[in-house]
Amino acid sequence: MYIKKQRLLTPGPTPLYPPALHAMMASDIHHRTEDFRKAYRACLAGLKEVMGTAHDVLLFASSGTGAMDATVSNLFSKGDKVVVCVAGKFGERWAEIAKAYGLDAQVITVPYGQVVRPEQVHGALEREPATRGVFVQASETSTGAAHDVEAIAAAVRPTQAILVVDAITGLGTMPLDIDGWGLDVVIGGSQKAFMIPPGLAFMSISPKAWKFADSATLPHYYFNLKKEKKSGDAGESSWTPATSLILALAEALQYVKQVGMPHLIENAQLLAEATRAAIRGLGLELFAAAAPGSSVTAVKAPAGMDSGVIVKEFRNRFGAIIANGQGSMKGQIFRIAHLGYFDFADLFAVIAELEIILNANGFPVSYGTGVAAVQRIYERAAVLPQTVAV
Amino acid sequence: MYIKKQRLLTPGPTPLYPPALHAMMASDIHHRTEDFRKAYRACLAGLKEVMGTAHDVLLFASSGTGAMDATVSNLFSKGDKVVVCVAGKFGERWAEIAKAYGLDAQVITVPYGQVVRPEQVHGALEREPATRGVFVQASETSTGAAHDVEAIAAAVRPTQAILVVDAITGLGTMPLDIDGWGLDVVIGGSQKAFMIPPGLAFMSISPKAWKFADSATLPHYYFNLKKEKKSGDAGESSWTPATSLILALAEALQYVKQVGMPHLIENAQLLAEATRAAIRGLGLELFAAAAPGSSVTAVKAPAGMDSGVIVKEFRNRFGAIIANGQGSMKGQIFRIAHLGYFDFADLFAVIAELEIILNANGFPVSYGTGVAAVQRIYERAAVLPQTVAV
Repeated sequence: MYIKKQRLLTPGPTPLYPPALHAMMASDIHHRTEDFRKAYRACLAGLKEVMGTAHDVLLFASSGTGAMDATVSNLFSKGDKVVVCVAGKFGERWAEIAKAYGLDAQVITVPYGQVVRPEQVHGALEREPATRGVFVQASETSTGAAHDVEAIAAAVRPTQAILVVDAITGLGTMPLDIDGWGLDVVIGGSQKAFMIPPGLAFMSISPKAWKFADSATLPHYYFNLKKEKKSGDAGESSWTPATSLILALAEALQYVKQVGMPHLIENAQLLAEATRAAIRGLGLELFAAAAPGSSVTAVKAPAGMDSGVIVKEFRNRFGAIIANGQGSMKGQIFRIAHLGYFDFADLFAVIAELEIILNANGFPVSYGTGVAAVQRIYERAAVLPQTVAV
Repeated sequence: MYIKKQRLLTPGPTPLYPPALHAMMASDIHHRTEDFRKAYRACLAGLKEVMGTAHDVLLFASSGTGAMDATVSNLFSKGDKVVVCVAGKFGERWAEIAKAYGLDAQVITVPYGQVVRPEQVHGALEREPATRGVFVQASETSTGAAHDVEAIAAAVRPTQAILVVDAITGLGTMPLDIDGWGLDVVIGGSQKAFMIPPGLAFMSISPKAWKFADSATLPHYYFNLKKEKKSGDAGESSWTPATSLILALAEALQYVKQVGMPHLIENAQLLAEATRAAIRGLGLELFAAAAPGSSVTAVKAPAGMDSGVIVKEFRNRFGAIIANGQGSMKGQIFRIAHLGYFDFADLFAVIAELEIILNANGFPVSYGTGVAAVQRIYERAAVLPQTVAV
């Protein structure tokens, strides 16, 4: 017998920042009080600051999918022409939402593990100049691939279309110059690099996108961007907010600001680089080798081994919860996350555990090979601000 | 100087059941694991049990308004004829949602503090036999009035229309025989009698209502009743669930089952009766005297006194957060809540504080008059199961 601490190591929900969790204990607060408005304003201002944008930022009590839904139902009208980039499960979700609301979508699909190239977006916009919106994932969580958001934005910016970016795992793992690149809507979720539980979504929205809200005719009620903007300006949410999560977010944002968004991104990039080095060192294959992002690294299971076995072994042997593939990738890949509140200690353990699991399941590796690869990357790492002791 | 513990005493969010809050500390759990499915299934089964229905129960990461929105967007089509009962701010919300989605609403409006009579609903249905839905609040939180849901249901049941009941503050404060009376949709929220923070909504849905989902054509995505039913049957939610709140709800439902729903309702009714007795004893006037509910008691501010002053005095003098009037009632009434995790000790304190506030603001009362009225009701109370010591 040995102790197995349960550790949540998936690309969302991510490991929780403990002081943010503790902050939820102050939830016996009413949401129409000055005390709560202070926390709500701190969230809106903090999100603006760490997202690095002068655009408006709105918050919702919903999952990230809710904010995706909100964008479509508030900024578009039935029959609007749009371009949807599909490079995995979350791209497919954009396509589903567009279909649910009756948009006329030109869908650019690439195989899982690859990314939509900016030239493809450019071509789609040239083919259909009446296009009013382009939808893309910054980081496609299902595959670990990252889009070249800057170049895609350059293709969209000169057109009448707005660029809507699902940055739910992009924020905090890759640079996103919202105002400089012209990202019209950028969507995030609480349970990713923001280190708190699921239940909140947020978005930035550009002046160009706001104009779309004036003419859009799709029906909506709960998700109402204009109403939410007005409420937010008054330090409130339109409906009852998820107070506990707002308190957690306010606390987590303090930490993110203290670390600094560039350092948070650097942390993810370093851990991603170290993960890739370890995987290659162990003779395994990266899934999204052409455009690997820093939120999560997808790894192909060895030939003849179901990735579900690896995931199960992590849990049963070590109490570590890591992610299987999603959708059609289930059983094919497993995913090692490094967005938000992850550190090298987490990665050392995961890689050491992986080595044991591989050895035990017919894929012999030399113990320590992968860990050493992580250690070598660590040697080169910039010294990051000290994280809190927990 | 003296200590002021902050106490949340509003009709939502309500006082939190501490073990449910503590349960949120286990949020480092992934939502696509058997551990979490166990909690999710417990919530769905527990809600069914305490709601006392054999109908399907669905859960959403949203406020109660989200579930209201979901009902309209999933069960109706543009132009559908409906009857909306408006007896306060939340009735007005039904009317707003119906308008947002383009329903053809026959609105029955009564003055704040009164209730829509079953005969009015019957008449509306006779006038318009093509009516497909009737919307009502069980308890109108803004005024403290409670509708005669049983009689309204009797008027709706023989027709083709479904009855949609916002029971957000009705559940746990009044008997609601969902299956026996034929309540087609009954909506609840986490932050009311269920004693946990805001962020979850739920609803029961009858076979008659499910048939509406087949022919409804309004667009929706995040709120998808059929999809949510399928997900719930698999112990999951369609999108990322608000995991922390699910864990809290599972814990709170254990407590509600332990107390027993009839006793929880009895507790609210007793406290409501005691509050009314105290208010009358102090020479103040009840706002919804004709049909007072047991979730919250609205009290008219004394002539010449703004109810906001009373609310502010509660907070500044005693740290007690009580509710002002909403909408047009702001400044006119204040509201004393007693739904969910409230007890006589809370009420003794509130009434004693109220006496001090009245005396200090030009409305002399004999100290203890109101408290004595509460005490007399307490003497008659059935012995309730012991609540947890906190």
